[in-house]
Amino acid sequence: MHRYRSHTCAALRKSDVGQTVRLSGWVHRVRDHGGVLFIDLRDHYGITQVVADPDSPAFKAAETVRGEWVIRIDGLVKARTDDTVNKNMPTGEIELYAQEIEVLSAAKELPLPVFGEPDYPEDVRLKYRFLDLRRETLHKNIVKRTQIISAMRNGMAAAGFAEYSTPILTASSPEGARDFLVPSRIHEGKFFALPQAPQQYKQLLMVAGFDRYFQIAPCFRDEDPRADRLPGEFYQLDVEMSFVTQEDIWATMEPMMTEVFEQFAEGKPVTKEWPRIPYDVAIRKYGSDKPDLRNPIVMEGVTDHFRDSGFKVFAGMIASNPKVEIWAIPAKTGGSRAFCDRMNAWAQSTGQPGLGYIFWKEEDGKIAGSGPLAKNIGEKRTEAIRTQLGLEAGDACFFVAGDPAKFYKFAGEARTRAGEELNLVDRDRFEMCWIVDFPFYEYNEDEKKIDFAHNPFSMPQGGLEALESQDPLSLKAYQYDAVCNGFEIASGSIRNQSPELMVKAFEKVGLSKDDVEERFGGMYRAFQYGAPPHGGCAFGIDRVVMLLVGAKNLREISLFPMNQQAQDLLMNAPSPATPAQLRDLSLRVVPQPKKD
Amino acid sequence: MHRYRSHTCAALRKSDVGQTVRLSGWVHRVRDHGGVLFIDLRDHYGITQVVADPDSPAFKAAETVRGEWVIRIDGLVKARTDDTVNKNMPTGEIELYAQEIEVLSAAKELPLPVFGEPDYPEDVRLKYRFLDLRRETLHKNIVKRTQIISAMRNGMAAAGFAEYSTPILTASSPEGARDFLVPSRIHEGKFFALPQAPQQYKQLLMVAGFDRYFQIAPCFRDEDPRADRLPGEFYQLDVEMSFVTQEDIWATMEPMMTEVFEQFAEGKPVTKEWPRIPYDVAIRKYGSDKPDLRNPIVMEGVTDHFRDSGFKVFAGMIASNPKVEIWAIPAKTGGSRAFCDRMNAWAQSTGQPGLGYIFWKEEDGKIAGSGPLAKNIGEKRTEAIRTQLGLEAGDACFFVAGDPAKFYKFAGEARTRAGEELNLVDRDRFEMCWIVDFPFYEYNEDEKKIDFAHNPFSMPQGGLEALESQDPLSLKAYQYDAVCNGFEIASGSIRNQSPELMVKAFEKVGLSKDDVEERFGGMYRAFQYGAPPHGGCAFGIDRVVMLLVGAKNLREISLFPMNQQAQDLLMNAPSPATPAQLRDLSLRVVPQPKKD
Repeated sequence: MHRYRSHTCAALRKSDVGQTVRLSGWVHRVRDHGGVLFIDLRDHYGITQVVADPDSPAFKAAETVRGEWVIRIDGLVKARTDDTVNKNMPTGEIELYAQEIEVLSAAKELPLPVFGEPDYPEDVRLKYRFLDLRRETLHKNIVKRTQIISAMRNGMAAAGFAEYSTPILTASSPEGARDFLVPSRIHEGKFFALPQAPQQYKQLLMVAGFDRYFQIAPCFRDEDPRADRLPGEFYQLDVEMSFVTQEDIWATMEPMMTEVFEQFAEGKPVTKEWPRIPYDVAIRKYGSDKPDLRNPIVMEGVTDHFRDSGFKVFAGMIASNPKVEIWAIPAKTGGSRAFCDRMNAWAQSTGQPGLGYIFWKEEDGKIAGSGPLAKNIGEKRTEAIRTQLGLEAGDACFFVAGDPAKFYKFAGEARTRAGEELNLVDRDRFEMCWIVDFPFYEYNEDEKKIDFAHNPFSMPQGGLEALESQDPLSLKAYQYDAVCNGFEIASGSIRNQSPELMVKAFEKVGLSKDDVEERFGGMYRAFQYGAPPHGGCAFGIDRVVMLLVGAKNLREISLFPMNQQAQDLLMNAPSPATPAQLRDLSLRVVPQPKKD
Repeated sequence: MHRYRSHTCAALRKSDVGQTVRLSGWVHRVRDHGGVLFIDLRDHYGITQVVADPDSPAFKAAETVRGEWVIRIDGLVKARTDDTVNKNMPTGEIELYAQEIEVLSAAKELPLPVFGEPDYPEDVRLKYRFLDLRRETLHKNIVKRTQIISAMRNGMAAAGFAEYSTPILTASSPEGARDFLVPSRIHEGKFFALPQAPQQYKQLLMVAGFDRYFQIAPCFRDEDPRADRLPGEFYQLDVEMSFVTQEDIWATMEPMMTEVFEQFAEGKPVTKEWPRIPYDVAIRKYGSDKPDLRNPIVMEGVTDHFRDSGFKVFAGMIASNPKVEIWAIPAKTGGSRAFCDRMNAWAQSTGQPGLGYIFWKEEDGKIAGSGPLAKNIGEKRTEAIRTQLGLEAGDACFFVAGDPAKFYKFAGEARTRAGEELNLVDRDRFEMCWIVDFPFYEYNEDEKKIDFAHNPFSMPQGGLEALESQDPLSLKAYQYDAVCNGFEIASGSIRNQSPELMVKAFEKVGLSKDDVEERFGGMYRAFQYGAPPHGGCAFGIDRVVMLLVGAKNLREISLFPMNQQAQDLLMNAPSPATPAQLRDLSLRVVPQPKKD
């Protein structure tokens, strides 16, 4: 028989009854039932119930074992009696009568319980991550994570892509976040940088004539701790293709990712054909470029209904500024004063002056609008609004007024809140879309100048002609995001592969050809030697995994994460370097005055 | 029609004749045949011949294009005449008559030719790597590299393994090479390290209850440039399993890797059942723990034949020191004085006093030994040696004498040289083996003390009892290498997962429990909370790829390698940090006195 096991702890079935087998695993739990000991033995695959009765030669050993000890058990497989069969366990029809127990590794008193996975402080969980990872939920999440990534790899391979590993010790990249630096020992005073993303390398691969690249790519950004990003490193499914339009990229990634989602959605529906929503439309309808399409609320403009109306606040705003619009946030089933007042109070709590509303009820067989606004604008306008939005008795509508560029985010939040409060959001589905036609430039209010809205390496729609003739702020880019349930899961673009066009695009934000060369050296040079049209995208793997396992916290889907203070408590990193190491690197630590 | 292409440059066949198609790609070559222009259009997939005759509306554009420009061509597929069919090209039965040519990207004068891939200085190739990578051989090597890695992934998945990504920003690891450090911005004066290998993490994964881990793992060692290792990073197929003996690991990896080799060996035979050769035996038979088994020469001990013989040098050595042995290196077909003298001269050129030999020829219908040695020891002993080694007329044998610990490397080199000079080595095959039972400790001559021979985290054979009772230098480890054609392609071990045993093993090399905790902190702590028996290995991916593509230089199988001075000439890394970056990291560059 094998030294450690003839079966895993998930393998034994009724058909094995009568066999002598060997299992190894962790003591999940020991129970004493009137002198008979029951040991739940656990391994990566499952749990088997082991019985040691006082007559067994293994009884003495069984009495000594404690939770999380690693033991080997030889024993006889017996059928459970009908009343003790456990239908929830794959091995629930049998139990193992222990004949011999060998302790392979004892355990000290546990700083963190595994069985039952009670809540525990995060720092203890991270310091004893090897115990934390034995806990059922986290263990399953991590396994699912490996499966999701594997499915992505298989999907990309099936679509004709090859995986290329790009360098991790490289130069500063132009993504704009802070780089992690790696001092060079051989070149005194010089530093490598860890890649924020393999952006330049994947584009260079296209210039080098490779056609369909992907990589499960580690990325590094030295950012201050944020709730939605782990300190240090994260992974993305990085993709690039040559001789393509943006439609080719969508047509490639959409079915692949839909299949990945379906494979792990546990029966929840997944959007098969992802709507392609222009950025401007998304802002108007959902108040966000990351709309949660599970929320059925779609905002509409209702400016004209308030123009010259009896509601003087809105009418006055409209009259005084042509940029002013009134947006309606229809809220099916929200038609009670209590709910409307709650929304109004929430709006005030966020710093807004309030949230105007109308709600409709049935009065004398007729649908009538209620609330101060309805009174002010009168029955006819109220009814016109109701008709436009398709609302009924029992529904409500909220109104936001002003310059949409300034209020759209708040409007989007109100839409989200109304949908959630009214339970309009169907949580058991994955609603995908592409947000397309992002602006190429944006106005930087702080510096009073034009900036790139996203990536300077994206291609402006209309090319050189549009760059030279259009108002820069009206230019769109071949730039797109993929969104699932209100989260951005991918971002991408068709790249600007023309050196002249790059220089022209940089000029508009006040940067010179030298700046292009400095920020995109390798790439800018490469584009001068025959660069194919190309584009791609990157899916955030952590976000996809979080959505699919239903985790709220990145640490619930990460193997060995750092804490919020960017420390690895398990390995004790970062830690001081030795004087010899610093000398090797020609570096000295120079304490800085503390910032406030 | 698609904006850029209806087909790739490898797609068109005779069955497409008559179709109007669109191709995009690089101008591989332009030839002018009596006024008609022939353009070889190249993409990732292949080459198509395009014809532009003076009547074509595309002729004018065709006249302007130069090598490595990216162009789109619309044209009509025509069959080639029988005498112009090119059987060596998949598209060799057709050519494309250009009707329209669009320049997608022009190219400046090339610093490095792509067509014909002539030799070029390495620094130019690295600086213009995006051009270098378009060259046929390198492009193919890189594609094959991606396929080999993909086959490894599929093989591991089929064997029930999941791929886990372990952290890249971590703490110093105990592998013993120099770490790359990454300064922490948030924790002043502290540093992360890039992993030399995920050794501790993969063992922690086993302690965390995951059963079968693998990873195509990036590893980082800040070593001085070496011919056989690229500066910076390299990749290994990293593997770990729980509840296994070393036989389980061999039985898992051997068929998987055999299949990977067979898949890419282009018909060359691959060892199906890898012999398992104890380290001591490998040293005696091949003079190396990385034997090239394509070389049929097997050394044997022939000490007794020289004891008290007429060859006084050997006989005297044997008499004076019980450690002295005489090893024979039989050399089939080497039986000429000229060859034997050449070997002797080579031995002297390496600093040896010489290389004794006997060679046999047929004289008067009898096989007779020749040379000074044969004369000295006489006919009977000469014949006994010949019989023991199974040699015939026309063969030779070389002899090495002394303490095997001191001469085995030279003996191995002589074996290699004889095999290669005599063309005994069959180059067109992949000969694998496992070298097993490595010594656990070795004697450090410099420091006059016992050291770990390999990894301090390997399990000594015989466990605690052997550690306490045996001569340390006689202890074997559960430690093994995989070898292919004379190159180590993998290394692995069963791990020492007992905290007590670790402390005991460290004691023997003069290190304390505190040292264990310092060097293996995370792991040593984890082993105290229920650690399963586990082991694994790591295959060097670069080496496997080099063997399979037949490359001699790591840069021929690497995408964006650094040069020998550890510089990325394409991206210009490493480079100086800005004062703001250094301030953020609380670091100052302090020039060091130059070392000699």
